[in-house]
Amino acid sequence: MLDGAGIELAGHISQQQLMDKLAQLARFGALEQGGVNRQALSTEELDARAWLIDWAYTLGCEVMTDDCANLFIRRAGLEDLPPVVTGSHIDTQPSGGNLDGCYGVIAGMECLRALAQAGITTLRPIEVAVWMNEEGSRFSPGAMGSSAFVQPQRLINYLNNQDAQGVTLAQALARCHQRFPHLPRRAALPMTAFVELHIEQGPVLEQANKPLALVQGIQGVRWYQVTCLGQSAHAGTTPMADRKDAMSLARQTAQQLEKQAETLPADQLRLTFGRWDIEPNAINTIASRATFTLDFRHENPAVLAQFDDWMQQISAENVIVECIFSHSPVAFNTQLLAQQYACTQALQIETATLTSGAFHDAMHLASHCPTSMFFVPSHNGISHNPAEYTDPQYLYIGAKALACCLTELANQPIGVTHEHPHLSCLL
Amino acid sequence: MLDGAGIELAGHISQQQLMDKLAQLARFGALEQGGVNRQALSTEELDARAWLIDWAYTLGCEVMTDDCANLFIRRAGLEDLPPVVTGSHIDTQPSGGNLDGCYGVIAGMECLRALAQAGITTLRPIEVAVWMNEEGSRFSPGAMGSSAFVQPQRLINYLNNQDAQGVTLAQALARCHQRFPHLPRRAALPMTAFVELHIEQGPVLEQANKPLALVQGIQGVRWYQVTCLGQSAHAGTTPMADRKDAMSLARQTAQQLEKQAETLPADQLRLTFGRWDIEPNAINTIASRATFTLDFRHENPAVLAQFDDWMQQISAENVIVECIFSHSPVAFNTQLLAQQYACTQALQIETATLTSGAFHDAMHLASHCPTSMFFVPSHNGISHNPAEYTDPQYLYIGAKALACCLTELANQPIGVTHEHPHLSCLL
Repeated sequence: MLDGAGIELAGHISQQQLMDKLAQLARFGALEQGGVNRQALSTEELDARAWLIDWAYTLGCEVMTDDCANLFIRRAGLEDLPPVVTGSHIDTQPSGGNLDGCYGVIAGMECLRALAQAGITTLRPIEVAVWMNEEGSRFSPGAMGSSAFVQPQRLINYLNNQDAQGVTLAQALARCHQRFPHLPRRAALPMTAFVELHIEQGPVLEQANKPLALVQGIQGVRWYQVTCLGQSAHAGTTPMADRKDAMSLARQTAQQLEKQAETLPADQLRLTFGRWDIEPNAINTIASRATFTLDFRHENPAVLAQFDDWMQQISAENVIVECIFSHSPVAFNTQLLAQQYACTQALQIETATLTSGAFHDAMHLASHCPTSMFFVPSHNGISHNPAEYTDPQYLYIGAKALACCLTELANQPIGVTHEHPHLSCLL
Repeated sequence: MLDGAGIELAGHISQQQLMDKLAQLARFGALEQGGVNRQALSTEELDARAWLIDWAYTLGCEVMTDDCANLFIRRAGLEDLPPVVTGSHIDTQPSGGNLDGCYGVIAGMECLRALAQAGITTLRPIEVAVWMNEEGSRFSPGAMGSSAFVQPQRLINYLNNQDAQGVTLAQALARCHQRFPHLPRRAALPMTAFVELHIEQGPVLEQANKPLALVQGIQGVRWYQVTCLGQSAHAGTTPMADRKDAMSLARQTAQQLEKQAETLPADQLRLTFGRWDIEPNAINTIASRATFTLDFRHENPAVLAQFDDWMQQISAENVIVECIFSHSPVAFNTQLLAQQYACTQALQIETATLTSGAFHDAMHLASHCPTSMFFVPSHNGISHNPAEYTDPQYLYIGAKALACCLTELANQPIGVTHEHPHLSCLL
């Protein structure tokens, strides 16, 4: 199944190079107390792009961008076939770590460096994509660059979105394009495959004591907002039986949903009541209004549908239920996953399989081309936090598996079949 | 038991006068959409004071103030004995009604007007007190004027308290004293009795279909703040079994307390979880910290002590319990209540008895002199709201009962014995 070039390239991956470059990238937007704040299209992120572009040119690569300021670093193949693409993002949360997104970009670049060092030219081009604003912490929504790449008409709806300072995305994009006027701008193009390498951002892989996971897909998600209505009244003068306490109603509603969810297959279930807004939120006043959100995730569309039914059932005159975001489960490409497995076997890397609970750029790419992911463990499952950490040995193993996989894919004369990934539907 | 002057005076109370003066007072700080915003010591409240003082002078009364800007409107008695005092407050909530506090002040003034009209001079002086900042909505804490009257050393601790604009109480008091430089300033003095007439601010009296209540006392209260600690983590990547969800813990803790409270005698129980602050309060992040408050009230000290025990029992490494306010139940003076009952019998007014769930200035006065209260019904129990409403007929009945009671007390040669009201303890 393998032609050998992949295994050869994996041998050229350098843990030292990988760790050095991760450390260099982490200097852009480094926080004094550790961690990174590198918002999408900020000065820090543009400086990091300049550094990446310069590095790409030293490797003999071509660098392109698109209208949504995604960056494509391309190592030419023997033939001008659709490229094999890897990559992730370099924007971070306001108090983010050094690995989320960055690891996938730097590991991809290390593959390009290793190819140059090994003097290997693949049949197909290999590209490292840097997707714009994956985190969504400066401009909403997240995964902006990858979603607009896949459906370019989305960009028009994003352009007027503002950051906290009132800067529009259109203004931030213009600033980025002005900074890099020499970069050719290209439209979306067919891709042979997209393989994203990422940290897990959860504890499962570490608990399984495996250095690498073959990611089968991404869980479907429902975001609901539930508004419970009551009547504000005095905490001292209102007998218990006369109360319409919106917060009591909200707590009971959350508890009911929690109990219902306990009847579901637990393994892949995620249920979070994350945001609560109470009015008037005063110590001695019964709440007139209590709004909470819930984030429900599962890999099984039937379970998601069951949950949607329950949400409809709790809807009442004084319980307003709104679905504010919905995404179907995404199944990654089985041929790619088989290819990934073959590479890890050849490299004697132990793997687990899991389904991602987090969104990634790969979620959008899956509707564009054959797509899959690798995960490396996150220590204690911590992410979006300066304490984000993965054992360098695991980072190295992940980069080797990626190098092997990209090279093998790029040398295949016939591309992978694009399966239906259960297409996403954004509300 | 009655000497007849009280009944006579009640006959001079005018519903028309009462309603007219309530409407006139409501113009100071009137909101366009109805209701009143008349914060303590604001321009609107000082204008209302000027209007009251002017009215008092036309009735031949003396007007005095004290260091804490309480106002005392005094109708002299035949002898310079400790006065019989009524009154309440004229400051309001930001979106308050026309009756809370104001009714007690205007009804007291109507008694003084009726005394003048009837040409009755009582043995003891009668005073209408206007207590400063009862609501506590501009400066914290509430019942500032009455608490500082009773314990003058409290004023020193209040002076640096600031309103939302950074104005200190000391500055606001100075402005008030400058506006009324002619008012004599006096120290706290012994009082024969304090009888406060107020709207119930709850639904009990209306449900009992009675126009007036003899208020037996004020419930004891505990305010606790409970902080639950967890660990923030990704809503999608963190399996349910690995979570330390601070909000789940907070909801379970509140539920446990609620269940325990259900075992208590329910009639006088009040339990409210009013304020909730969640961190980071994001839809897709498990809460790291959830803080909620609870307001527990009961008239029985043993029940309050039982609740304090439960609060200690829920305390744990990740559940931080703080008592932020505590007040023992206050029992009003039984001799005064007997006097009130005799007056209502003589006037053929049906009464209920109840215990106040809300604080009032009378709570503090109870430690200074024999104290009690009358309540009139609040339609639908609504208060602190422009929709606050009491049938004018009930307002009239309350004023008549007050007039009778004040006159009878002011004509008694021997004062009422000051009983121990279960002295308050502020944390």
